[in-house]
Amino acid sequence: MNLLYDFPTELSQELFSTVFASPDVRIERIVSHGHASPPGFWYDQDEAEWVMVLSGAARLQIEGAESAIELRPGDHVNIPAHQRHRVEWTTPGEPTVWLAVFHGASVAPEDSPSTPDVT
Amino acid sequence: MNLLYDFPTELSQELFSTVFASPDVRIERIVSHGHASPPGFWYDQDEAEWVMVLSGAARLQIEGAESAIELRPGDHVNIPAHQRHRVEWTTPGEPTVWLAVFHGASVAPEDSPSTPDVT
Repeated sequence: MNLLYDFPTELSQELFSTVFASPDVRIERIVSHGHASPPGFWYDQDEAEWVMVLSGAARLQIEGAESAIELRPGDHVNIPAHQRHRVEWTTPGEPTVWLAVFHGASVAPEDSPSTPDVT
Repeated sequence: MNLLYDFPTELSQELFSTVFASPDVRIERIVSHGHASPPGFWYDQDEAEWVMVLSGAARLQIEGAESAIELRPGDHVNIPAHQRHRVEWTTPGEPTVWLAVFHGASVAPEDSPSTPDVT
């Protein structure tokens, strides 16, 4: 799957595709087409997320930050686990393609140990 | 640092920049400008590497594979640890920008345990 070109031209919802997954990392391609997070909605994730815009344009709001982060192709940001954030805007004129690398807590979340206790 | 635009226009060698690093993942931006691996040279890495071409074009040879993999922007491949590979060609007419996500053995290589034995 080519990450920049292989997706439907019409999308009523954001499209999430897992590109690669291993025990320590998960890579997703996300395609937005003018989509934004619903008003008042915040992502609050167990995993950290390094995210980059591949095409299009977006504004990412980090909770507590004075202003949103403008992201154009090649721009990137790491969002620590449980750092609340939302997508304020993506450009309506073309698809915005994100590459997201989830890492960290994915390996062994506190509530689900990866190795059982041996007694 | 914008990954697509922030680099010198003239590069005598490939340019490697660490974009993000954590205990479980390391993200690098690599810029090639017509560079290829020296004849007979093979990369043999302790870490697995998921790699994507962001701009330009490249041919990646995996040892034992019949033909090289053509990579254009949006194309990607995961190279397991110790899978020998080389860059056969990158386009001379423009920079080829790679995004590489190193993962796996980076966390705890077999020869360097991440936690000391307690005796």
